[in-house]
Amino acid sequence: MITLTTDFGYQDHYVAVMKAVILSINPNAKVVDITHGVRKHDIRHAAYILKSILPYFPNAVHVFVIDPGVGTSRRCIAAKLESGWFVGPDNGILTLVQKKVKETYEIEIEGKSTTFHGRDIFAPAAARIDMGDLGFLRKLKDFIRFPYQEPRKYGNKIYGEIIHIDHFGNIITNIPRKVLGTPKYVVLNGRKLRFLPSYGFAEKNELIALINSEEFLEFGVNMGSASSSLNLKPGDKIEIIVD
Amino acid sequence: MITLTTDFGYQDHYVAVMKAVILSINPNAKVVDITHGVRKHDIRHAAYILKSILPYFPNAVHVFVIDPGVGTSRRCIAAKLESGWFVGPDNGILTLVQKKVKETYEIEIEGKSTTFHGRDIFAPAAARIDMGDLGFLRKLKDFIRFPYQEPRKYGNKIYGEIIHIDHFGNIITNIPRKVLGTPKYVVLNGRKLRFLPSYGFAEKNELIALINSEEFLEFGVNMGSASSSLNLKPGDKIEIIVD
Amino acid sequence: MITLTTDFGYQDHYVAVMKAVILSINPNAKVVDITHGVRKHDIRHAAYILKSILPYFPNAVHVFVIDPGVGTSRRCIAAKLESGWFVGPDNGILTLVQKKVKETYEIEIEGKSTTFHGRDIFAPAAARIDMGDLGFLRKLKDFIRFPYQEPRKYGNKIYGEIIHIDHFGNIITNIPRKVLGTPKYVVLNGRKLRFLPSYGFAEKNELIALINSEEFLEFGVNMGSASSSLNLKPGDKIEIIVD
Repeated sequence: MITLTTDFGYQDHYVAVMKAVILSINPNAKVVDITHGVRKHDIRHAAYILKSILPYFPNAVHVFVIDPGVGTSRRCIAAKLESGWFVGPDNGILTLVQKKVKETYEIEIEGKSTTFHGRDIFAPAAARIDMGDLGFLRKLKDFIRFPYQEPRKYGNKIYGEIIHIDHFGNIITNIPRKVLGTPKYVVLNGRKLRFLPSYGFAEKNELIALINSEEFLEFGVNMGSASSSLNLKPGDKIEIIVD
Repeated sequence: MITLTTDFGYQDHYVAVMKAVILSINPNAKVVDITHGVRKHDIRHAAYILKSILPYFPNAVHVFVIDPGVGTSRRCIAAKLESGWFVGPDNGILTLVQKKVKETYEIEIEGKSTTFHGRDIFAPAAARIDMGDLGFLRKLKDFIRFPYQEPRKYGNKIYGEIIHIDHFGNIITNIPRKVLGTPKYVVLNGRKLRFLPSYGFAEKNELIALINSEEFLEFGVNMGSASSSLNLKPGDKIEIIVD
Repeated sequence: MITLTTDFGYQDHYVAVMKAVILSINPNAKVVDITHGVRKHDIRHAAYILKSILPYFPNAVHVFVIDPGVGTSRRCIAAKLESGWFVGPDNGILTLVQKKVKETYEIEIEGKSTTFHGRDIFAPAAARIDMGDLGFLRKLKDFIRFPYQEPRKYGNKIYGEIIHIDHFGNIITNIPRKVLGTPKYVVLNGRKLRFLPSYGFAEKNELIALINSEEFLEFGVNMGSASSSLNLKPGDKIEIIVD
């Protein structure tokens, strides 16, 4: 199976052309779209998605084309993971799954364009890896990571960061359940929020803290958008108090 | 065949994870996306889509995840329909097809999260029903409906409601062709609109009445948006005069 | 293989219903979505997409439903191309690939609605053509083109037009690499822009000229949107100076 994640949006033909290239090389490939709505050029959003989908697609080849450096000297890489493969630009997308990377390779395929390596390099690479052909890969020593710090707990304070804001306006942090524990309240920027099992337990428009489906702390509003009432964006550092 | 309809939008990985779960249980499942652009938490929009697609997908398992009550005591249900199945939360989505429901069941699958039953409960349930496995279903006596009144005609007046506004700004009512008849004009809020066979027969920017492809009365504008010129939204009651 | 391109957007069930119709006639059809985000009623956008995808989908049946004249006397046509087929309304979508049209046919299928020929006429026609059934096609003498002029070069001036603005705000012209040559600069509306191989070579926010992945001149901004800084839209005529 080959999965596709890009920031190409839904109004152009770019994704379909990548699929055509994959199927022309590997007609039996099973291709699944993850999303093409990654925030433009946002490596952190892409890294979060890769981390989130990995457990659900064992042995898949995950193609990521969030690639502001396309055509420059940034490398085109493939990474063998504990289960499956990553294919994409060497620009940090592997950061949040770096402990699962077993081996990294440079992709030795020549692109005919300097602006669309999704079509010219990553799609053919994924099609071939999915068929077991690794002949075009050359071992690398390392890959690029963006600066990232795991969450830390000191007493009842936890330091973390905002990792994503989803379609519903839910604000997702990098603080896992095992660091958070099971508080009654979470205090964020002086606001004391109830810690509840799900959105539906909150009052209408109440901002709450909860553990999301990936087992991370998230801020949400019942039938509303947390991101409209909290001035936070991906990458922001946060300090919370558990109570 | 399994169809998927959600309000998850197109920027997150949630839908893809549901597909991964389905395929992990039922590798030969044929999965078709209906839309993931249902208005957030809008049960009425979901109900309209279910009603609209039913004739075109005989024997399919239709998964609907428009689920503001996820994780609360609202039930997870499956319904055997005249043709095919519905799988989703028990929150009213069956209202507009209630006459086609033969049997309703509670889904006895334990979700590991309290926030993403699409992944934990509805996707596995659909995968199993599609394979003919009904062993996890427990019969129910009834299911939830939202308040809804069929359109009524008194003389030349018809009372109905707005059921949906589509991508083109077309305003779709619940008034079927057989109740409307074939008037020359439809008067709505004092505006006398021509009743025409299709958008292209109207003058540019002319607001018209027509019968849409599902055989219901709709208001549209040639090369424009009816919803920009009429202050109506789904759920609004309307009174029209046929002439 | 059947490809689908429409201006139906992503919030309605219309595209899914077309797929259901195709699969009901031709259960083994392989259907690929190109995009459903074509600008509403924009024939030029549709024509650009058809031209762009054609080389990547040999022998595919390309269904286009950008159809403001649905239900009027505009014809429903199929065109045999050098490789593959076009199916859609006769409203100009073939203009940019007109040299690749070998034969044009009227589709003799009766639509049950006057507003959704995508479902009633184009989907069944594509399903049947993909199966080799051409029995419902009647030869035509010609098809409709919109007014379009190929780019012209006089000395160091080139006259062309804007053909598309993509998701990233890149402004795509109809000027091919072979007409442009390899200048150091492109002057547009008095602004002297560097001609570079890819976005990543530009300074942040610098507006540049480049050759895109389809081999046409494009204006782009590194990590930004050219369409936000240039007041140009599809169809606009441009005059550039190469330097």
